[in-house]
Amino acid sequence: MEDIFEKGQRASNDFFTGTVWVKMLVTDEKGIFDTQVYHVVFDPGSRTHWHAHPGGQILIVTRGKGFYQEKGAPARLLTPGDVVEIPPDVVHWHGAGPDGEFAHIGLSTRIHRGPAQWFGPVTDEAYATETHRRRGG
Amino acid sequence: MEDIFEKGQRASNDFFTGTVWVKMLVTDEKGIFDTQVYHVVFDPGSRTHWHAHPGGQILIVTRGKGFYQEKGAPARLLTPGDVVEIPPDVVHWHGAGPDGEFAHIGLSTRIHRGPAQWFGPVTDEAYATETHRRRGG
Repeated sequence: MEDIFEKGQRASNDFFTGTVWVKMLVTDEKGIFDTQVYHVVFDPGSRTHWHAHPGGQILIVTRGKGFYQEKGAPARLLTPGDVVEIPPDVVHWHGAGPDGEFAHIGLSTRIHRGPAQWFGPVTDEAYATETHRRRGG
Repeated sequence: MEDIFEKGQRASNDFFTGTVWVKMLVTDEKGIFDTQVYHVVFDPGSRTHWHAHPGGQILIVTRGKGFYQEKGAPARLLTPGDVVEIPPDVVHWHGAGPDGEFAHIGLSTRIHRGPAQWFGPVTDEAYATETHRRRGG
């Protein structure tokens, strides 16, 4: 499917590896919903750094093949329509596979608990190992 | 675009007019996210009853033309990619236009505040008036 959202702003390489685009859909600056909503487009091979959300995060995959990995567990292959529930404080990354773009809606929930915490990049070696293992999945 | 979610269960005509399908994506039974997520498909002419959410609601339009109306205001035409922020306790309805299917992702936020409250159907006359007025919009 084509994206129904604009591509948004390029995300900082302080927190992302490669080229990632973030379109904010709900900023919730007044704290009415306790939730922020955004659409993220990952170029092939690009991904978040390791991070965790004090209030949790939900991903809804809209396009392409991507991956989600919690620290200490194998990566999970993601395809359109998949939903990922990421509890508070679980260290994880998500991003595109090596061969194509990937996009998801993201929800940061219970944002009154504070912003994401960041723990450095997923190394090229770790990324290659995880995505190669599941490429046929 | 095609839907990336299953069509789900038919919604009760206690709360909806016409034929509406709801696929739950995140039930949040344990209250981890304080948020429920679902995809809703409205057959042509179908719509919610008037209702309000004590914790607020966010809609993300995925397909078709539809409408959102707050009590006392004119209906707003919705197309794919549109996002609607519905603050707590605002009485409203949403649904398809008369001529085609309509679908959106819905988020019920701050669900600890309690379930939606329902205020009866949007009459055929009120629906026709609002959707006719904006059909060319």
